[in-house]
Order: sequence, then structure tokens, then C-alpha cells
Amino acid sequence: MKQLSLILFLFFLFSYTTTTAQSYSGNKEDINSILTNLSNFSKAVMASDYQKIGNAYTIDAKIFPNNKNIIKGKNAIITYWTLPEGIKTKYHKINPEEIKIIGNEAYDYGYYEGITLKTDGKEISWKGKYVIVWKKINQEWKIYLDIWNNIRD
Amino acid sequence: MKQLSLILFLFFLFSYTTTTAQSYSGNKEDINSILTNLSNFSKAVMASDYQKIGNAYTIDAKIFPNNKNIIKGKNAIITYWTLPEGIKTKYHKINPEEIKIIGNEAYDYGYYEGITLKTDGKEISWKGKYVIVWKKINQEWKIYLDIWNNIRD
Repeated sequence: MKQLSLILFLFFLFSYTTTTAQSYSGNKEDINSILTNLSNFSKAVMASDYQKIGNAYTIDAKIFPNNKNIIKGKNAIITYWTLPEGIKTKYHKINPEEIKIIGNEAYDYGYYEGITLKTDGKEISWKGKYVIVWKKINQEWKIYLDIWNNIRD
Repeated sequence: MKQLSLILFLFFLFSYTTTTAQSYSGNKEDINSILTNLSNFSKAVMASDYQKIGNAYTIDAKIFPNNKNIIKGKNAIITYWTLPEGIKTKYHKINPEEIKIIGNEAYDYGYYEGITLKTDGKEISWKGKYVIVWKKINQEWKIYLDIWNNIRD
């Protein structure tokens, strides 16, 4: 019985490890810089700091929001992210599954989740998945392509 | 009046050129190989040739369909693409806006469009945008990450 418990324990530990495994490939400094940028992006979204959100992108970045054409350029991207008065993103988190550095470019994919606080006080939870293509510009990693779509609960 | 016509002509020519401009960066052989693969992917979709669709992907590829979790691995991807009996994709076209080769990896983004033919004979047109991350494996370019979402008419 003890042995069975141990086997079950190891099985669940293994399942847990494999399903949450993250694969980061590249030098530590670049990986950490991208992880910090992802975390700061969420912070900027939660603070409704649209200039900071804009600065996360390259000047010629492209975003691909659902049901819209490709939105090109930092200024158009800031306009897209700007929420109507009174609406806030209360919670935002990005969980990368893989980051791969290839010289001055990188790709990254994973999941995101968030909670929107509406003017009537109602909260809407959402989650989705994304792919980002990064470019290193003047030693800073910036988002060049940013595409995502939702996961239905 | 002639001059105005010329100015208008040049203006529209310029607008047309800039909105449909394609940017391909990398050696010609790699670019052509990816362009051929995109075209063959559409052909395989139109032929309901699911093995060919599967072969377009790496063994460990990931696709990101709307409202679903990330689907991992060639076999799961083939299952996703397999349409119910009687339903066909009558038309499928991918229009890349940018392809960039970075060694044995590449990224590519653009638009796609298609027509689904339903069992009752009705046709549904759709279009969207995508980002693909490619990997060159044994001299063949395969799709590693494939994410897209729709554009509403």
C-alpha cells in the first residue's frame, strides 16, 4: 500500500512537472530580460499606463487582435490598448511556456489570464494563449509581433 | 487637369504599393521554399489531405485555435484539422506580408482567406491573420508554431 502511494505520488509529481514545464533557450541575461518585460507589461496593463505599454513594442510592431485587421505601429497599438474611461484591467498575468533567443530576435509562446473591472463593478475573467516575436533594439527586448486568442472556460 | 490626373494616379499607385508590400528577408532558396510550403498547405487543405497537412508541421509543433487550449504534436494537429464527413474547404489562400529567415528558424505573418462548403451546399467565407514560426529540419521548412484569428467582415 505504501509502495502504491509512492508510485501514485511520483506519477502525479511527474504529470505536474511535465504539464507546467517551461523551456527557455538562450543566454540567461536575454531570457531574464524578456521575463521581466512580460511581467512589466502586465504591471503596465494593470496600471492603465498606456505609454509604458507602448514602449514595450518596437516602433514598427504589429498586433493581431481578434476580429480586426493587423494593427501596425506603436501609436496605433497604444490607441488599441487604451480602455474606455472607468474600465480597468484589475489582474493580468503572462505565463510563458517557451522562450527561444535567436541572436537579436526571439520567439515566445504561452498563456495569459486577466480580470477586467467594469464601470458597474462587475468583473470579467478571461484567459488565452499567445505567440510573441521579439527584437533586441539598442540592447532592449521589444515586442515586434504580438498575436493571441482566447480560451473559452 | 492632366497633371492632376497624373498626381492622383501616382498617389493611388503608391497607396496600392504600400498596402500590399511584402517583405522577404533571407536567402532566396529558403524564402521560395516557405512560399511553396504555404501554397502546398492551402492545396492540402482544399484536397482534405490530412497527412499532407500534418507533414507541414514539425513532430512537436503547436497550434493555437480560437477558444481552445494549445494543441501539441503532429497527431493531435491532424485530428484538429480533420473536418466532419461531407464538409470541405473549397478555397484556401495564404498571403504572407513578411517572411524573415534567421538561420534554421524563420517567422512569417500575413493574412489568410477561405471558403467552407457545408453538407447543405451552403458556402461560408472567412478571412483572418496569422503568425507562423518555422523550423528547418533536414533541409525542409516545417511549421513549429501556428497561431491565427479571424477578421470580421
